[in-house]
Amino acid sequence: MLDWLRHYRRAALPGDIGAGIVVAMMLVPQGMAYALVAGLPPVAGLYASILPPLVYALFGSSMTQSVGPMAIVSLMTGAVIGPLAAGAPGLHSVLAAQLALVAGAVLLLCGLLRLGFLANFFSRPVMSGFTVGSSLVIAWGQVKPLLGGPLQHPHLPSAVLGCVSLALLLLARSHLARLLKRTGMPATAADVLSKLAPMVVVLAATAAVAAGVAGSGHGIRLTGPVPTGLPQLNLATSPSHWRELLQPGLLIGFVVFLMSMSAAQTLAQKRGEKLVSNRELVGLGAANVASMVSGAFPVTGSLSRSAVNFAAGANTPLASVISAVLLAMALVLPTGWLALLPLPTLAATIIVAVLGMLELDTLKTAWRYDRGDALAWLVTCIGVLALGVEAGVIVGVVLSMGTLIWRASRPHIAVLGRIPGTEHFRNVERYAATRSEAVLILRIDANLFFGNVEAVNERIEDELRDHPATRDLVLTMLAVSSIDTTALFALSELNASLRARGIGLHLAEVKGPVMDRLRDSTLLDQLNGKLFLSTAMASDYLNTDNKDHP
Amino acid sequence: MLDWLRHYRRAALPGDIGAGIVVAMMLVPQGMAYALVAGLPPVAGLYASILPPLVYALFGSSMTQSVGPMAIVSLMTGAVIGPLAAGAPGLHSVLAAQLALVAGAVLLLCGLLRLGFLANFFSRPVMSGFTVGSSLVIAWGQVKPLLGGPLQHPHLPSAVLGCVSLALLLLARSHLARLLKRTGMPATAADVLSKLAPMVVVLAATAAVAAGVAGSGHGIRLTGPVPTGLPQLNLATSPSHWRELLQPGLLIGFVVFLMSMSAAQTLAQKRGEKLVSNRELVGLGAANVASMVSGAFPVTGSLSRSAVNFAAGANTPLASVISAVLLAMALVLPTGWLALLPLPTLAATIIVAVLGMLELDTLKTAWRYDRGDALAWLVTCIGVLALGVEAGVIVGVVLSMGTLIWRASRPHIAVLGRIPGTEHFRNVERYAATRSEAVLILRIDANLFFGNVEAVNERIEDELRDHPATRDLVLTMLAVSSIDTTALFALSELNASLRARGIGLHLAEVKGPVMDRLRDSTLLDQLNGKLFLSTAMASDYLNTDNKDHP
Repeated sequence: MLDWLRHYRRAALPGDIGAGIVVAMMLVPQGMAYALVAGLPPVAGLYASILPPLVYALFGSSMTQSVGPMAIVSLMTGAVIGPLAAGAPGLHSVLAAQLALVAGAVLLLCGLLRLGFLANFFSRPVMSGFTVGSSLVIAWGQVKPLLGGPLQHPHLPSAVLGCVSLALLLLARSHLARLLKRTGMPATAADVLSKLAPMVVVLAATAAVAAGVAGSGHGIRLTGPVPTGLPQLNLATSPSHWRELLQPGLLIGFVVFLMSMSAAQTLAQKRGEKLVSNRELVGLGAANVASMVSGAFPVTGSLSRSAVNFAAGANTPLASVISAVLLAMALVLPTGWLALLPLPTLAATIIVAVLGMLELDTLKTAWRYDRGDALAWLVTCIGVLALGVEAGVIVGVVLSMGTLIWRASRPHIAVLGRIPGTEHFRNVERYAATRSEAVLILRIDANLFFGNVEAVNERIEDELRDHPATRDLVLTMLAVSSIDTTALFALSELNASLRARGIGLHLAEVKGPVMDRLRDSTLLDQLNGKLFLSTAMASDYLNTDNKDHP
Repeated sequence: MLDWLRHYRRAALPGDIGAGIVVAMMLVPQGMAYALVAGLPPVAGLYASILPPLVYALFGSSMTQSVGPMAIVSLMTGAVIGPLAAGAPGLHSVLAAQLALVAGAVLLLCGLLRLGFLANFFSRPVMSGFTVGSSLVIAWGQVKPLLGGPLQHPHLPSAVLGCVSLALLLLARSHLARLLKRTGMPATAADVLSKLAPMVVVLAATAAVAAGVAGSGHGIRLTGPVPTGLPQLNLATSPSHWRELLQPGLLIGFVVFLMSMSAAQTLAQKRGEKLVSNRELVGLGAANVASMVSGAFPVTGSLSRSAVNFAAGANTPLASVISAVLLAMALVLPTGWLALLPLPTLAATIIVAVLGMLELDTLKTAWRYDRGDALAWLVTCIGVLALGVEAGVIVGVVLSMGTLIWRASRPHIAVLGRIPGTEHFRNVERYAATRSEAVLILRIDANLFFGNVEAVNERIEDELRDHPATRDLVLTMLAVSSIDTTALFALSELNASLRARGIGLHLAEVKGPVMDRLRDSTLLDQLNGKLFLSTAMASDYLNTDNKDHP
């Protein structure tokens, strides 16, 4: 904990300060916008950007992760609390904070149980399909605020402001960095500065609104008064809703972890930094608990913001600490101007932000490389669009798990024969190897465990049917590094079955650690055959006539 | 389909007839008892024993499986429909039939999608813990009917009848087979006949009740009138409950498949018969649809009954056809006597039946052999007892999936060195192999896919940190049979990261099929290094000074 602070090098400071300022300026419009996506007052997004990143800096292991509001997690939050708080406006904030607590508790628990290996639960195609589907849902949800009304009946001043903001942001996205570079600015600085376009556009729109019509006579919806001061300790809860929040909180915790890890892994690899998944669980869990305490909503690491943090020169979590402090100062200063932020412009910033998540590279690559993976992408994306973001996560889980089990259930097994004149035994399908009728030698190229034990069994029975003259079966176990309890039972049952059929079962080349474990079982005592150090020794012994057959 | 009938050998007939008669006699008390466990009228259990096994005989692949009512599936059925039908007595049967349809449709769909590989979703310890926990729940649920009232206030005549029945059944279980053998009966026949004890005890109790007091003056609850005749086509449904039945139907379909497969696999192996998991899905799915049509409830293959079928000499599904026909005949004959079956005796048969499922061997073996597996057993069992049978299935799924991912996330990777004076490269930790400072050679002993890609990445980064003088990294891919899209992206990102750090990335001993797939990607074109046929060639080339470094 705080290793980065103990070994802080002064050389890292300028980068951290610069990145801290840039990220703080990104966070003002982003935080307010993502709070709106979650159906919450905009100030909640600022609260979510102060305490959570500070707490993450204490516990997390990533040097450049920017923890705070994130579009997809906000979408999920809104989808959960919307129906529950329907008709009770004050309830949204309470439920969102409770949801952050549930998600945080789940993450902390997983961290304590050292379940960090779950980080790679989703394959990349599933993750990408989920992200793209969610982005489309978010963008579609912003059309109404962008136009100040439904697509068929836009509110003209709002629609003009929204579309102009959108056009400016899209132009900035595609051209600003290039223009800045042409002025002689270094490439990295230009890229980073171009990310501040949303802040600039929001400020300009606010100024325009404030200058144009005094009051709100123009009818454009504004964010409304933002309370001055830091978030108050918030522990209000709604006892009746804990049960309903449990499953969504679990799902959100899961998505928080997956999203954050995929962002952090990408950046850690670029600098060869070490990421500890169990510490990430604790860091994200604590950050979400902190978000609850701030009266905010579930937070996670955001890839787009973390990438800016990284590019702006962040070397350590001090960058996040600096941006949190800056945001806190902004809330202590007069916040009157924040009340005049026009919602259509905020909607435009959201739409442009999620456009950045609409990457189709993964789908394209998968389509060329592995149609099954491309199908998983499509199913997940369509799942999100058709069934909603929560069901989309479940579709992703089911697909990933199905793939895992399917892979596990296809172990490689080879029938071995002797390369004539040598001690070598090879797959008879690939080599000119010869085998005897009476001795069937199978090499099992996978660890034996519950997921593949039946496939191994079926293959053995198939081979025995194809080789009806078999008198002895030898399993060559060189590639088997572990045998779980299920596989142990299966081997015992195979042994009993072969004994009843008058066929010997022999094991060859059993690895040391596997043998040590097998000695704790009764399999070796009951083995209807022998143990051999090598396949060649097994073959030589079993093919001589004077052996004592079991 | 019906292969067994086309190739029917006359020699199989006596065994099939005998087994058919024995199983029919088991099914009368068992079917009625398991219908009671599901909270349904006893006759539903008889209905569930006629059409479903007939349909299974058409589509299934097991020769000896006895499909019909089964204790745990009945328990789950009761747990689902109980709360939904609370207060509406007629609704139980409708919901149970609907549940059978949902489970059947799920199974059929899985069969069409060829998801038979899911058969080994549960490890044996999880399956055993689930079975034991469910058995305890079922036994506890029968205490009240056994005593004719709650434990504190038993109804004396009922309690006497129930306890006497229980004692007789327990005695029969432990001694009857032995006694019969002493009379000179062959061992198998004695074992099979002893399984008819429940039928005999039920008949005796019925006779005693009928003779003892005319009418029901003794106050012992009886099964009540059983309608004569075959089940009517039943398509009544409750439209409002489909949604609530979807998830439980899915879980029950899943358990139906797992239970049936574990029974069928055990028996198929004993005779070296082939079981086709996708056909089992279709057979069980069709059987459950047939159960819905009969107005019954979800059915599955029962290990205990199938084992009796097997031991009684069943050679083909004709045995099940015969027992179904016998049960149908029993329902066409006057069924007045069935009305007099005393419930305490049926409760006793249930308790004794589930005692047979209380096996602790798996736990004991796992405890000695693999504490992690023993823990999975305990967690699942306690999950069922504490949270209920439905939540228990989910606990089992989560445990199994967690184990799968955990296993997948620990690929074996070895740092290789040259055995001096040879062309052989071996793990430097196990062999006296030497390596050069500048060339790091890693052998990856697992297929690369989303579940292990991050672990591989972390290991590579760890090794690069441990060997800071590395100028070239060679990945020896002999054991890699497949690379999925996620791993492809990870390799591309590793390649880009190493290029930026001035380290070459080389691949050695890539298998033919893997190379063919990689050619469909851009990885090879962008590779920051070379491809080598062998590790030795890579080492020789990279350790010469005059090579052109990438």
